[in-house]
Amino acid sequence: MTNMPTPSERPLIITMGDPAGIGPEIIARALREHPELRSQVLVAGDIPTLQRAIELTDSIDGRADERLVLAEVGDVGAWAMAPANRLLAVQACALPEPVPFGCISASAGKAAADCIAYAARLVLRGEARAMVTAPVHKEALSAAGLNHPGHTEFLQALSAEHVGVALNHMPVRMMLSSPGLATVLVSIHVSLRAALEAVTRERVLETIRITAAHFQRSGMPQARIAVAALNPHAGEGGLFGREEIDIISPAIVQARDLALNVSGPHAPDTVFMRARQGEFDVVVAMYHDQGLIPVKLLGLEHGVNTTLGLPLIRTSPDHGTAFNLAGTGRASATSLLAAIDAAMRMSAAPSA
Amino acid sequence: MTNMPTPSERPLIITMGDPAGIGPEIIARALREHPELRSQVLVAGDIPTLQRAIELTDSIDGRADERLVLAEVGDVGAWAMAPANRLLAVQACALPEPVPFGCISASAGKAAADCIAYAARLVLRGEARAMVTAPVHKEALSAAGLNHPGHTEFLQALSAEHVGVALNHMPVRMMLSSPGLATVLVSIHVSLRAALEAVTRERVLETIRITAAHFQRSGMPQARIAVAALNPHAGEGGLFGREEIDIISPAIVQARDLALNVSGPHAPDTVFMRARQGEFDVVVAMYHDQGLIPVKLLGLEHGVNTTLGLPLIRTSPDHGTAFNLAGTGRASATSLLAAIDAAMRMSAAPSA
Repeated sequence: MTNMPTPSERPLIITMGDPAGIGPEIIARALREHPELRSQVLVAGDIPTLQRAIELTDSIDGRADERLVLAEVGDVGAWAMAPANRLLAVQACALPEPVPFGCISASAGKAAADCIAYAARLVLRGEARAMVTAPVHKEALSAAGLNHPGHTEFLQALSAEHVGVALNHMPVRMMLSSPGLATVLVSIHVSLRAALEAVTRERVLETIRITAAHFQRSGMPQARIAVAALNPHAGEGGLFGREEIDIISPAIVQARDLALNVSGPHAPDTVFMRARQGEFDVVVAMYHDQGLIPVKLLGLEHGVNTTLGLPLIRTSPDHGTAFNLAGTGRASATSLLAAIDAAMRMSAAPSA
Repeated sequence: MTNMPTPSERPLIITMGDPAGIGPEIIARALREHPELRSQVLVAGDIPTLQRAIELTDSIDGRADERLVLAEVGDVGAWAMAPANRLLAVQACALPEPVPFGCISASAGKAAADCIAYAARLVLRGEARAMVTAPVHKEALSAAGLNHPGHTEFLQALSAEHVGVALNHMPVRMMLSSPGLATVLVSIHVSLRAALEAVTRERVLETIRITAAHFQRSGMPQARIAVAALNPHAGEGGLFGREEIDIISPAIVQARDLALNVSGPHAPDTVFMRARQGEFDVVVAMYHDQGLIPVKLLGLEHGVNTTLGLPLIRTSPDHGTAFNLAGTGRASATSLLAAIDAAMRMSAAPSA
């Protein structure tokens, strides 16, 4: 580790996302609005597609004297020597020409996947500090023959391969955050009925451990983790369900035995309010909507998605490819900027 | 109906709640802070207990020249002739002497129940326009031998008896509202597992109908009712559960056949945000926490609980007896004032 560059010497990698979506243009907009980021960031994408996005946002946001200039770098080693005040990008995929806006295609899916793989390898090798992923399209990835439905599963596979472990030894969790509220989910894209079955002592404990490890790595070893109950009023002593007694409380006891700063199970209808008021740093939610309803209510445009459990830092804006907006230059970069900010903070911690 | 007094000639009844809780003092505080309400309101309670609450809040809030004065009236008929600018109250229960603060007792529970029954009968007979209930204590009601765990069930029984129907012909639903967001719940105090079973076409349709009838009676016949889905992403076409396809959508179709202004099923994690942004007037939620997490996040102190489905208007503050605060004079009247305001508005509609 002696020759490992320090965080400020390593770039934050932003992947372009699906080239037919809003990814390229929100990246251009973010780096136009925030010149101070240009020296911190390397965009993994397709140079002509990024050039098109810059011209699009130039035509809407720009004045002649403040055109955003793209500089292609050959690799991450050349990044540190690149000219100042440019959007620095690397050709991380092969795309014959820019794809039409708003269309699902295998070539777009393949390009998006290649950029993710490129970025992940840099971060896994320690050559980049963290990665921020612009949105991909599930059907385009599938058309390209990728076996993973989205970023999370793909990054999990790349990480497991890098570390040399089986997939099931690299459990991941999704963290969603809005200003003032962060939540980590025990389960995500399953029916509510299946989510009930996923509330096991092992999974709850694993979620707490993954959450604690993330905050530790981000410089908050004593982060206050609140665990939400599953049932109304936390089951009211077993009257409205026994999961709190039989599953969640024992998992919390085990987590405390590991010296983790964890409390609960707390009544679901007030724990998010209490977290927002400053009582907790993060809430472990028992199912998708329990956590996502409050986070999205507090501001979708500032939502950040972070993948926990991987040996790399990855955040993303909390929105999709927005094919209906792509090419109009109207998409907002607010959520992407929040994701960049979160990844910068997480990778600035001494232990990151 | 020819001699039925108009709303402004009829009082809004506020029940005292458990005399050992914060009910009496928040009533005194509300009427101290809002003199304009004094001529609109009749408090159903215990006169010495209310007098104690006035003295308590006087000692904290009052100046010598603005003491709040209680005037006892014999019945609702005498209310209209009562002196101006007083807290007007009727002795609606028998209590030998004020009970100690913060203690559960059968006599307190009995007094609270008697006040509820007194108020409900006035509203059911059309002699009062609506009722607002201060909090009761479940264990005190139980100690008093009341067979109903709370207001809702007790009012349901009194209403069914008044109308002369069986209890199961008087279905009720709970509506919770904060500024900018209202939600009506398909089920309330059951485990999440049992709540899943309660999501039937009949219950969802009944909830929509009760919601529509309430808004109609409150002068909003075209209220935009959004129905939340049960599963993440509204089931994503059956991938994450089939309740949307098999149960919720058919209920919505039936409701539309009744000419109700209803849409959905909407993805749970964004429907509350959309309602708050003004797209819908109310969200039908599939279970307790789905609706209560967002409403409480937006401001517990302004939360109002409304019972829908009864032939009377009843609201309450969204908090409990707060035995730990009772007698300190520190409890806030904000939620009670929101409940009073909501009941006033609902009972001001021409068809109320």
